[in-house]
Amino acid sequence: MARVGDLCRPPVFDVAFREKLEQLFLWRRDVRRFRTDQVDNKLIEELIATSALAPSVGNSQPWRFVNVADPNRRATIRANFETTNADALGNYSGERAKLYATLKLDGLDKAPVQLAVFSATQTPHGHGLGSRTMPETLAYSVVGAIQTLWLAARTQGIGVGWVSILDPTDVTGTLDVPDTWQFIAYLCIGYPEEEHMDPELVRTEWQARVDISKFMVQR
Amino acid sequence: MARVGDLCRPPVFDVAFREKLEQLFLWRRDVRRFRTDQVDNKLIEELIATSALAPSVGNSQPWRFVNVADPNRRATIRANFETTNADALGNYSGERAKLYATLKLDGLDKAPVQLAVFSATQTPHGHGLGSRTMPETLAYSVVGAIQTLWLAARTQGIGVGWVSILDPTDVTGTLDVPDTWQFIAYLCIGYPEEEHMDPELVRTEWQARVDISKFMVQR
Repeated sequence: MARVGDLCRPPVFDVAFREKLEQLFLWRRDVRRFRTDQVDNKLIEELIATSALAPSVGNSQPWRFVNVADPNRRATIRANFETTNADALGNYSGERAKLYATLKLDGLDKAPVQLAVFSATQTPHGHGLGSRTMPETLAYSVVGAIQTLWLAARTQGIGVGWVSILDPTDVTGTLDVPDTWQFIAYLCIGYPEEEHMDPELVRTEWQARVDISKFMVQR
Repeated sequence: MARVGDLCRPPVFDVAFREKLEQLFLWRRDVRRFRTDQVDNKLIEELIATSALAPSVGNSQPWRFVNVADPNRRATIRANFETTNADALGNYSGERAKLYATLKLDGLDKAPVQLAVFSATQTPHGHGLGSRTMPETLAYSVVGAIQTLWLAARTQGIGVGWVSILDPTDVTGTLDVPDTWQFIAYLCIGYPEEEHMDPELVRTEWQARVDISKFMVQR
């Protein structure tokens, strides 16, 4: 993809592009069922490069991407998920617990690419600008990059699933990264087994969409 | 914009769309200099609706948007920024302090639309799924929505600037929102005075972009 644009002349985003972008937002999905086809590593690196076009507080670029390829580390992460998820299930009862137990909440079994994403909380880049009263803005910068990667991946037919049912301290240990790196997300990436526009948790009747007007207030 | 798509047939995102999307990522900017032209309120509501197509943990949809229109509240927020920013300046010395003092870090003076964005930490939606070991994923969901809004705004020629140099507790008080709402971002929104592709903090030589390959590791 073109990385250098015309510095002086902003592009025009016409109605056709805007409608297609809306379709992209609608069709981005949290994917948990992957085909085992490999994804070209160059494509993954391009997606990571694109993700770094996201905003970051003080231009701190705190995103750190760990490509987890080692089978032993993957197995340990998966065991971490299994334990954490069993604990989570224990917090539900009745029909809700039954439903929870049927949900597929991760793609760790088959996802050909697995990326752990961290925030470098002590990065010198950005010289602390903008993050003094809200240090969590470093983590937020990483999340903006993840959403950017997710959208770019979808345009290539690649699905992404965000696994958060993990003990974050254990993830940091398993992946042997500096303890100043804050764990943000574990991403399962690959070609999806199926395509659908409705969110997984809507389909399974776990949680419906809520009318957005309920979440807007005036002050 | 079309809200309902074909549930069964995913759209094709061709090379032309992907290149334009890359341009959108490149040209999304943190804007601090706004024209005073009004932005149609319907457009803001549409952008907020689009933002809610972002992923959220457990489909919890924890985003809460506060449209801050009251001049007194706006003045209090601006005073909050001025104090917090003066404190931040006090942490730099020498050339770095001189440079910091020249930076324009907010658009609170002129932005016609100001949105404070919160995360509803106690929302019943999503039934706690996915956020037990990492409750911060609720905040992360809100950040994904903000990045989505930012991109959609840019396609309409609308600039967004994220102000994080604020005392978050004071913002919550000023805006009289529930104290279970966690303050995430204060967004200045409007038509930009100028268009440029390079980030503000790169132009001012505060912080250059770093080669993304330095932020990728293998495990």
